[in-house]
Amino acid sequence: MKRPMVECVPNFSEGRRPEVVQEIADAIRSVPGVRLLDQSSDVNHNRSVLTFVGEPMAVKDAAFRAISRAAELIDMEKHQGEHPRIGAADVVPFVPVRGVTIDDCVELARRLGQEVADKLHIPVYLYEEAATSEDRRNLANIRRGEYEGLKNEISLPERHPDFGMPVMHPTAGATVIGARNYLIAYNINLNTSDISVAKKIARRVRASSGGLMYVKALGIMLEDRNLAQVSMNLTNFEKTPIHVVFNLVKTEAERYGVSIVSSEIIGLVPMNALLEAAGYYLRLESFSGKQVLEAGIWDE
Amino acid sequence: MKRPMVECVPNFSEGRRPEVVQEIADAIRSVPGVRLLDQSSDVNHNRSVLTFVGEPMAVKDAAFRAISRAAELIDMEKHQGEHPRIGAADVVPFVPVRGVTIDDCVELARRLGQEVADKLHIPVYLYEEAATSEDRRNLANIRRGEYEGLKNEISLPERHPDFGMPVMHPTAGATVIGARNYLIAYNINLNTSDISVAKKIARRVRASSGGLMYVKALGIMLEDRNLAQVSMNLTNFEKTPIHVVFNLVKTEAERYGVSIVSSEIIGLVPMNALLEAAGYYLRLESFSGKQVLEAGIWDE
Repeated sequence: MKRPMVECVPNFSEGRRPEVVQEIADAIRSVPGVRLLDQSSDVNHNRSVLTFVGEPMAVKDAAFRAISRAAELIDMEKHQGEHPRIGAADVVPFVPVRGVTIDDCVELARRLGQEVADKLHIPVYLYEEAATSEDRRNLANIRRGEYEGLKNEISLPERHPDFGMPVMHPTAGATVIGARNYLIAYNINLNTSDISVAKKIARRVRASSGGLMYVKALGIMLEDRNLAQVSMNLTNFEKTPIHVVFNLVKTEAERYGVSIVSSEIIGLVPMNALLEAAGYYLRLESFSGKQVLEAGIWDE
Repeated sequence: MKRPMVECVPNFSEGRRPEVVQEIADAIRSVPGVRLLDQSSDVNHNRSVLTFVGEPMAVKDAAFRAISRAAELIDMEKHQGEHPRIGAADVVPFVPVRGVTIDDCVELARRLGQEVADKLHIPVYLYEEAATSEDRRNLANIRRGEYEGLKNEISLPERHPDFGMPVMHPTAGATVIGARNYLIAYNINLNTSDISVAKKIARRVRASSGGLMYVKALGIMLEDRNLAQVSMNLTNFEKTPIHVVFNLVKTEAERYGVSIVSSEIIGLVPMNALLEAAGYYLRLESFSGKQVLEAGIWDE
């Protein structure tokens, strides 16, 4: 039996004081069973992104501890940076990795939101799949006016938080919590230096112009390699699997006499996304992730 | 950094007394970091196979404890069963899974052999990749005459063990220890009920008749589905990857106007064997197993 696993990728409004980011990372690591996989800070944005995983309740607890520590260490009254933000712990998304549904992550977001509002007195907004209204699905709408603007507008009924009183925390501001699907950064390189081919293929495969539902795509030029690339985000690899994207790009490219040189996955990818691809091409029947030797080992 | 991992699949001469098999399983589980993945007993063979994994030294220790426990609980003087055997712990192969070479497993086999001979006074033979001479690579040669025959012949120079005195242990007999590569049981189903097609393809892909180096293959009939199947063992998935086998069977089948209905992996498979297939078909460049989310988690 595999243990359910959730990923959390919170963004904090601190990217210039490594010791502060370290304290937040330590708060996450202090929860047993939670693994911090990545942390990266941007000095210009004055912002840090931490990636951690574990069982749902452990991940929720780690997120709470991190938000709490950030509230102690970051003062939004003094914060400056290029990236839009409304709080010390600015955005906290939960992502289903395995044995968990997006609805489970919505539930997790709600419980954490209630807890943050009750115990830390930070107003909380729910976004993406956890949003309570259509216009709050989009993060940009919630962050309109940023910290400074929201401070004035939070008392307006349409800007009231989903949890907590309609008053900004004096130093930590507000926090956006939500649930979204795992995002795979996936690029396909073409044997052409004609960027217009990559752009035409991108239009064909992306949802916004009639293509695959969970694909965002752009045609770009890799100047150093003199190759055109279809650069994509796959926002739901279970419903729109990688191999479906690959095959569609391949077919569209053929129309222009172009073929695929290679593809690349940037950053992390859930094992199931690749097992699915292997299973498709090898026409595997009745294969289960439980048959993967390492999965059996690590999950006992 | 991934921790190195070795698999051990010892065979014990006891398949009728579950409580004895349980005691041996408990001995394996008593070593921290070792995971028992599978155990299966055959009453007719009067034999059990246990599968466990972990870091090399932990796996060696667990194998020693299991051999020791089996020597206490199994009396070869009373053992009867259909399967050839020479000892209580009959055969003990080490298999590289990850971050370990076959040579590391040979070294492990030698160290365990020395220990078993020194501390338990059981004579030990080395086989397959750990063999000290060409004729001892083959298990059947070492087991010739079985327990009863070897008892008489062990004093002959050509049958002397690799470790220990040339005298059988009074109850535990002798043990064969070695190293081999991971074996994947892989079958491909064809859309024909003509078994001769499966047999012809099997001859083409297997090493013994000029095919792929690390493939054993047979053509068989799945009576219940009325399908012919190429049933294979892949004995080195790194040197002869699954997708190479799949593609060759597909190409050969085309010659007979036959196509592949599906394929199946029986039992466990190392994650890398499937990542390799996904990477091949998706033409992934610079992809590393470290990018698999779960691998990062489990290995920290």
